[in-house]
Amino acid sequence: MDYPSKVLSKAVDEISGLPGIGKKSALRLALHLLRQPASQGISLGTSIQNLVTDIKYCKECHNFSDSEVCDICNDHKRNDELLCVVEDVRDVMAIENTGKYRGKYLVLGGKISPMEGIGPSQLRIGSIEKKLNSGLVKELIFALSATMEGDTTAYYIYKKFKSQNVAFSSIARGIAVGDELEYADEISLGRSITNRTIYNEAG
Amino acid sequence: MDYPSKVLSKAVDEISGLPGIGKKSALRLALHLLRQPASQGISLGTSIQNLVTDIKYCKECHNFSDSEVCDICNDHKRNDELLCVVEDVRDVMAIENTGKYRGKYLVLGGKISPMEGIGPSQLRIGSIEKKLNSGLVKELIFALSATMEGDTTAYYIYKKFKSQNVAFSSIARGIAVGDELEYADEISLGRSITNRTIYNEAG
Ligand SMILES: [Zn+2]
Ligand SMILES: [Zn+2]
Repeated sequence: MDYPSKVLSKAVDEISGLPGIGKKSALRLALHLLRQPASQGISLGTSIQNLVTDIKYCKECHNFSDSEVCDICNDHKRNDELLCVVEDVRDVMAIENTGKYRGKYLVLGGKISPMEGIGPSQLRIGSIEKKLNSGLVKELIFALSATMEGDTTAYYIYKKFKSQNVAFSSIARGIAVGDELEYADEISLGRSITNRTIYNEAG
Repeated sequence: MDYPSKVLSKAVDEISGLPGIGKKSALRLALHLLRQPASQGISLGTSIQNLVTDIKYCKECHNFSDSEVCDICNDHKRNDELLCVVEDVRDVMAIENTGKYRGKYLVLGGKISPMEGIGPSQLRIGSIEKKLNSGLVKELIFALSATMEGDTTAYYIYKKFKSQNVAFSSIARGIAVGDELEYADEISLGRSITNRTIYNEAG
């Protein structure tokens, strides 16, 4: 497809570089922006640039943050004895959204997946260790996807730290097997975390 | 949904302001950008800003252009006797893509739609008049969507200019009734423009 203008062609190329957005959709979005006041496109461009340049990661839990330590880690009303291990920042948001959890988090940054070549060394297992070494954590809660990879990840972490003085639990499987956590509705997800199941040697 | 960071929240808000992109998709896109080198987000932001600040419209045909007059209007190998009236810049691109048309264009900027409150005064009917007054145009080709609004628009323009010394035609309805032009495949669209039908009083 030939574009009548280089700035249009460049914008369509860049927008269609985003996942799930083809050339036709990108063109539609570009034309939409051209029908709005220019201030909207300028503001959109600025906020995308600020996102990638200004985002910080909490040095405690690896959640996104505007400061060195995130609001959740900094919230002294929250229970330091509970540490909820999630794959991804979206999972923190999903669980926060249920309003059922008042402990802390640890964002692993993925799950063990031999298919995608992701091993334990690429995950923030060391940060879990640091948290456990602090002596504050009494329960490690796995809130991982109900998939083979999620199970493998939980089992790896459980095996690695089971000798420590900490209980292990997993959110209840209120969500169908195979479901990604982030797609679960908030009621099911809230129920899952309330009814979490405690790990033991048999489990 | 609470976001752990203001720059993330702002970016999600801005991205989800685009048509067809909800909050969940916007978050997914933002997280994707955060997994890429920052240069990608910066480049995307810049190209969106350049799009809305630097785009020009051809003063002849109202197509997008990088200069005052677009490459098509400036191309003296193209036939000035044919003027193809389209609704939208995307339609110019779609027709150019067929490779079957070597005349000029006039981008109306929409179609008459009482439902959406769009009347002839909001379209570039005056630019058609200017083109006809130049005396160069021998045939006005309507390449409008095969919808009630497209037909109404063509009929309005035909009635307004039928006393002038110009033939009127419409691209063949090789595309199904109700179809938007821009979704037509290029072979059907190419055939339509080759087999365009000439207007007469009865039509
Ligand atoms: Zn934190
Ligand atoms: Zn032009």
